[in-house]
Amino acid sequence: MSPSEHLAALSRDFHRRGWALGTSGNFSAVISLEPLRIAITASSLDKSRLAAEDILEIDGDGNVVAPSTGRPSAETLLHVAIVRALNAGAVLHTHSVWSTILSDYHRGSGGFFIEGYEMLKGLEGVKTHEHREWVPIVENSQDMQALAAETRSMLEENPRIHGFLIRRHGMYTWGKDLQEAARHVEILEFLLESVGRRQMMEPQH
Amino acid sequence: MSPSEHLAALSRDFHRRGWALGTSGNFSAVISLEPLRIAITASSLDKSRLAAEDILEIDGDGNVVAPSTGRPSAETLLHVAIVRALNAGAVLHTHSVWSTILSDYHRGSGGFFIEGYEMLKGLEGVKTHEHREWVPIVENSQDMQALAAETRSMLEENPRIHGFLIRRHGMYTWGKDLQEAARHVEILEFLLESVGRRQMMEPQH
Amino acid sequence: MSPSEHLAALSRDFHRRGWALGTSGNFSAVISLEPLRIAITASSLDKSRLAAEDILEIDGDGNVVAPSTGRPSAETLLHVAIVRALNAGAVLHTHSVWSTILSDYHRGSGGFFIEGYEMLKGLEGVKTHEHREWVPIVENSQDMQALAAETRSMLEENPRIHGFLIRRHGMYTWGKDLQEAARHVEILEFLLESVGRRQMMEPQH
Amino acid sequence: MSPSEHLAALSRDFHRRGWALGTSGNFSAVISLEPLRIAITASSLDKSRLAAEDILEIDGDGNVVAPSTGRPSAETLLHVAIVRALNAGAVLHTHSVWSTILSDYHRGSGGFFIEGYEMLKGLEGVKTHEHREWVPIVENSQDMQALAAETRSMLEENPRIHGFLIRRHGMYTWGKDLQEAARHVEILEFLLESVGRRQMMEPQH
Repeated sequence: MSPSEHLAALSRDFHRRGWALGTSGNFSAVISLEPLRIAITASSLDKSRLAAEDILEIDGDGNVVAPSTGRPSAETLLHVAIVRALNAGAVLHTHSVWSTILSDYHRGSGGFFIEGYEMLKGLEGVKTHEHREWVPIVENSQDMQALAAETRSMLEENPRIHGFLIRRHGMYTWGKDLQEAARHVEILEFLLESVGRRQMMEPQH
Repeated sequence: MSPSEHLAALSRDFHRRGWALGTSGNFSAVISLEPLRIAITASSLDKSRLAAEDILEIDGDGNVVAPSTGRPSAETLLHVAIVRALNAGAVLHTHSVWSTILSDYHRGSGGFFIEGYEMLKGLEGVKTHEHREWVPIVENSQDMQALAAETRSMLEENPRIHGFLIRRHGMYTWGKDLQEAARHVEILEFLLESVGRRQMMEPQH
Repeated sequence: MSPSEHLAALSRDFHRRGWALGTSGNFSAVISLEPLRIAITASSLDKSRLAAEDILEIDGDGNVVAPSTGRPSAETLLHVAIVRALNAGAVLHTHSVWSTILSDYHRGSGGFFIEGYEMLKGLEGVKTHEHREWVPIVENSQDMQALAAETRSMLEENPRIHGFLIRRHGMYTWGKDLQEAARHVEILEFLLESVGRRQMMEPQH
Repeated sequence: MSPSEHLAALSRDFHRRGWALGTSGNFSAVISLEPLRIAITASSLDKSRLAAEDILEIDGDGNVVAPSTGRPSAETLLHVAIVRALNAGAVLHTHSVWSTILSDYHRGSGGFFIEGYEMLKGLEGVKTHEHREWVPIVENSQDMQALAAETRSMLEENPRIHGFLIRRHGMYTWGKDLQEAARHVEILEFLLESVGRRQMMEPQH
């Protein structure tokens, strides 16, 4: 499977699972490092019908290299920022109900911890459920230069996280390749749902 | 795909997703403007098995033009009212759990705002998450002339909304064509679920 | 489709939707009235793999007529009781999460009303959302003669209901044929979920 | 279907249903008793794509017999402990949201009872809904020798249970063969969801 085919299949699967409804969600994979080339989903497309032709190639400034037509996702700069800051090979931005509401609920503290869950071991490098994972929340913005700058600075402060939320906007995660990044989506979405429902079971908690 | 095939495929998909169970839900698309002709799902059919033959053609008064047999949805007049008031090319009425319960919960205030969510940008013309979307709630009625009249008057007062709820009855949304209207269903259903679960996480909120 | 094929297909579909997990759920359709013959799912089978061969034929006393092997559902007598009391052509017993917990929550009052919901119009003979549907709750028992007797007496007192719950055991509904009965399952499961979530949104309600 | 094919098909199905996301979940079936040989899912694989080749054969000490490559699940020792203690023919470890949060909610009391539910009759040997099923909760640990020892001692004290939870880690259940064990997963997951939602409906309960 080419990176474009992989990204298109993943987009359709994530739509089906409720993580990329409407035109939400955008997904990328690094094709080459020198020069930096990234395959990324085009802007504003319905993910349930995405095909390999809907994947664009961009350079390290977020400009489209190929094909000549097509507009990359508005959030291209965030993908580039994450690739550069963390040497990620793939970046996935999902937009689920649970990531949306938890990013709002915990906005006051700038993030929240997920700890003590066995499922954390599915995150790269985590060896024990006793891990304490910080999930930062970045304030949402339509100024992509500003949002990318804030993301870079947040990643500098939190170099060991596996994902973060944008307030009322969803989740970003990544991995060394698409397979690892997709696993991180499954893991983190599971944990967000668990943490959210756990709290609803005991509101005073 | 013909409009009838498109409407039938969309009906089956919406049934599968829990938005048109039983015989609920009705869906339409404008075929021509002069004279006004609308393709619309027939009344009281199981959406899980809907076929192109189950789509009727009606005129601007809601009367069936073709085929000679077949009864249009009881809510045909609402579809016509929305098409005329907003120049919509397609009108979709879904009947989900979340639209049903939110239409009841907020009945006292005649509607509610959804604001600050990135997903709002999936609604036509919305450019920022800072958008404030008013979701009016119309009281339910079996008098379709009265319900259509109330809908017309509500749309005059709220010309910029993207959908509304009928109390304990579900949601209406629309678009310039079926594709846009279907995107609005996905967007609004996501937002209703998010708003509903957000509130359950913090009942005092 | 023969009644057996219809029952088998419906069993697999209801399993997939979470209404007949494990070996729960049992489903029947009247084949002939004089003498009374009913096609019914065999006992203790996994509904996800049910085939037409797994459907038995029983008489009006609940005894197996064909094939000579095979044990009918333990709850055969309830199906017979409902067929006789209401002239039903099909009886469906589902076992969903929402019917289970609502049958427990409202046990003290012997049932609960569902009213004001448009979806009620999907129930046979209901013409307006202003309908007030009583959903009786019968105490569970392993004595099937006793449970059938209690069901008969409950149906005599409530001849116009469309379904009832057995405490912590699920729902029974019916219809003039399998298609109508299956529609009643969809309608009632939707309403139970709506009523249950509505209440969780406002616990003091 | 060979045990390996059965285990692989079950893994894919459980992934689809949200019970084995990421690399979570592990599943085994006894191949022979003398000497003890168990087919078990290999470690750290994506269950959505599991194939028969990904199933390993281990002996009664948890060592891989075939193929020469491949690492068995980290929790192999728990599978062996359960097989030996209970003469189980299959052991299934799922990792659902509801088992995760209930294993945390009830940690203080070392477990909880599920009683009065008809669905309990789907558990082997249970003849009535009046059954009272104890669901023990074992504290999670990365020391598999210690966790296996604690599991053995817990099973000695509770020889009649049908499953147990590991705190914030999911559920173990078993059966005389894969079919019975898979039925126990469906039954217990249904009951955990019912118990969890029941409580959220009435938090003071």
